[in-house]
Amino acid sequence: MTCRPEDVWEALERIRTRGPLIHNITNYVAMNTTANALLAIGASPVMAHADQEVEDMVGIADALVINIGTLSEQWTKPMFMASRKAGQRGIPIVLDPVGAGATPYRTRTARQLLEAIAPAIIRANGSETMAMVTADSRTKGVDSTAAAAEALTAARSLHAEFGSTVCVSGPEDYIVGGGRLFIVGNGHALMTRVTGLGCAASALCGAFAAVGGEDIPGATAAAMAVMGIAGEIAAAGAAGPGSMQVGFFDALYGLTRQDIEGRLKMTVREL
Amino acid sequence: MTCRPEDVWEALERIRTRGPLIHNITNYVAMNTTANALLAIGASPVMAHADQEVEDMVGIADALVINIGTLSEQWTKPMFMASRKAGQRGIPIVLDPVGAGATPYRTRTARQLLEAIAPAIIRANGSETMAMVTADSRTKGVDSTAAAAEALTAARSLHAEFGSTVCVSGPEDYIVGGGRLFIVGNGHALMTRVTGLGCAASALCGAFAAVGGEDIPGATAAAMAVMGIAGEIAAAGAAGPGSMQVGFFDALYGLTRQDIEGRLKMTVREL
Amino acid sequence: MTCRPEDVWEALERIRTRGPLIHNITNYVAMNTTANALLAIGASPVMAHADQEVEDMVGIADALVINIGTLSEQWTKPMFMASRKAGQRGIPIVLDPVGAGATPYRTRTARQLLEAIAPAIIRANGSETMAMVTADSRTKGVDSTAAAAEALTAARSLHAEFGSTVCVSGPEDYIVGGGRLFIVGNGHALMTRVTGLGCAASALCGAFAAVGGEDIPGATAAAMAVMGIAGEIAAAGAAGPGSMQVGFFDALYGLTRQDIEGRLKMTVREL
Repeated sequence: MTCRPEDVWEALERIRTRGPLIHNITNYVAMNTTANALLAIGASPVMAHADQEVEDMVGIADALVINIGTLSEQWTKPMFMASRKAGQRGIPIVLDPVGAGATPYRTRTARQLLEAIAPAIIRANGSETMAMVTADSRTKGVDSTAAAAEALTAARSLHAEFGSTVCVSGPEDYIVGGGRLFIVGNGHALMTRVTGLGCAASALCGAFAAVGGEDIPGATAAAMAVMGIAGEIAAAGAAGPGSMQVGFFDALYGLTRQDIEGRLKMTVREL
Repeated sequence: MTCRPEDVWEALERIRTRGPLIHNITNYVAMNTTANALLAIGASPVMAHADQEVEDMVGIADALVINIGTLSEQWTKPMFMASRKAGQRGIPIVLDPVGAGATPYRTRTARQLLEAIAPAIIRANGSETMAMVTADSRTKGVDSTAAAAEALTAARSLHAEFGSTVCVSGPEDYIVGGGRLFIVGNGHALMTRVTGLGCAASALCGAFAAVGGEDIPGATAAAMAVMGIAGEIAAAGAAGPGSMQVGFFDALYGLTRQDIEGRLKMTVREL
Repeated sequence: MTCRPEDVWEALERIRTRGPLIHNITNYVAMNTTANALLAIGASPVMAHADQEVEDMVGIADALVINIGTLSEQWTKPMFMASRKAGQRGIPIVLDPVGAGATPYRTRTARQLLEAIAPAIIRANGSETMAMVTADSRTKGVDSTAAAAEALTAARSLHAEFGSTVCVSGPEDYIVGGGRLFIVGNGHALMTRVTGLGCAASALCGAFAAVGGEDIPGATAAAMAVMGIAGEIAAAGAAGPGSMQVGFFDALYGLTRQDIEGRLKMTVREL
């Protein structure tokens, strides 16, 4: 059960040692940030979305991350193709339903992906999580408006329906899976002023899941803790969102066992 | 009439308080920078371009920003769809005709958008502004070659034809609208060495217009002043374009009333 | 023969003075980084890929850079169109076959481009270079797995077949062309943790070739040396990959003759 600092540290060490290949089909805004976050943590990012190659790329990847932040029809088909292939290979899939609830198209596509994929991990903010269940919550753009706590019921519902580990990010992150609820209290408000960090979190969930064996909920919680701790370290030296982003990549890269032991705020309980 | 420091400050405060949702249909190069600039200033960015959702996204947005920096046919249709919807809703539209004059395709599409939209604001450099009128000025890539002052006649012509507030950016920014000419002297040459800052300026014009009520020219001038002041503050601490970009986001985020009062260089006169 | 520090410096000075327009048809991940690298060095970047304008844009460009990092069918056609036009105009073309070897689609498309273009410069890592020849080397994502030295035979083979200058980047960069082998020893391991720097290197090769006259191998070696020296300077002040990227743009912008004289590690020998 990943809850102790040493578990988080060992998961991070496995990424740094193995350098898992994370295949991302993600949005235009966050591609650069996502690739940099994966490189900083020691993983190997690849972006590929052409019908002609998505299955081949999944064939050599250790995890697949699907993100609908700048969705269009040409990108939907390869998302399904890649997911099917990832399912066949048994590598973990992360779904980030960016903006679900903001438009019917996003909500509908997110649901369709969810039903087709039954991803190992769903990572979303509160509004998006609720939209995936009820289809009548309204997102304000791609930011969270519902408190993460209020989305916990929705997370449990999604988990019950699809078996996915569901991570609702917010001031506290809630991770539901395997009969447990992890609560991660790490992070910093300035992270919400840097675009793409939520998308990067989803990619990190993929990296941790790729090296985490059977314990998907634990891997997800470890990923969110590492995101949050790196964010705290970056915020301590930041003058605003520009230096925050720079410091975040530096912190991910340099994260030590002591950083994790000194800062980890994670609790877990039975559900 | 936004010309006094307190007007600029109050406009900025309204953005920070209300967090307007700015819908961007923009280019691949500047998406990340644009989103970060909007977040830094306190607005909420969203990028969406699929035919299936652009109208819905415009339906919840407070302003629409159209930018043709990496134009292609699949992106043109949603630009028109989104603009039509924004017109129906009466939210401000900003058009950034990146590279107009560089190729006939860009010039033609920019003109078509202009004629279909009659945007609240056109923000362009001198070459682009002239290309929109004459179709025979030549842009060197996406940088300005004509001095902004020389484009003033073109700006007045576009304003007369479409009623749009026209902002010609350069060492001095000229804003024509409502029978007035604003001249904003803030900014720094190093800003031209960071990609996407012109696109970010257009997005900020959208944010200021979204909270600015009827005074579109004043909102545009305030946006350009805030861009320029943040650029000056960033340049003072920058060792080159890398730290310039970082410092720019930090400065946008941290901008104070004193920064504006101490640095604003804006004049206005009747036209 | 560009090998002496003064040759590299003079090439850099020509870029800063002339500001060549570099037309990039590149991937979504690296577009922003590529544009910023070109701006930092004093060149003028433009990104354009629509069928309707690629030929016109090539018509005013000083070099063309083709990069297949996020390849899809809609982008392939304009790559061929732009290359044909660049060939007619006699401006240098750089091909960066990102991820060749990772999937059959990339390898095949890279080969097709190579055969159609016979580019002035091919810039790739070791795995990609080998994949272009043998089609049976396997890339791990887009990172190098084959030591650059092992790819030297492949580079010579590609050079013999297409006449292109072939640059294999790695801890040492090997540049094969004009009967010579340049070895550039500049650079820093932290550069591999920042996404898009390989793509930026290809764009810089385009900028140096645009102002380098007949000596394409020398221009390529100069570009790689400048990349590496800027990377060394950035690494000296970096706490991780975030500050590395920032420092890299600053270093490119501020590079002095003394930096080049003090740091250049370049050898050349007959092949």
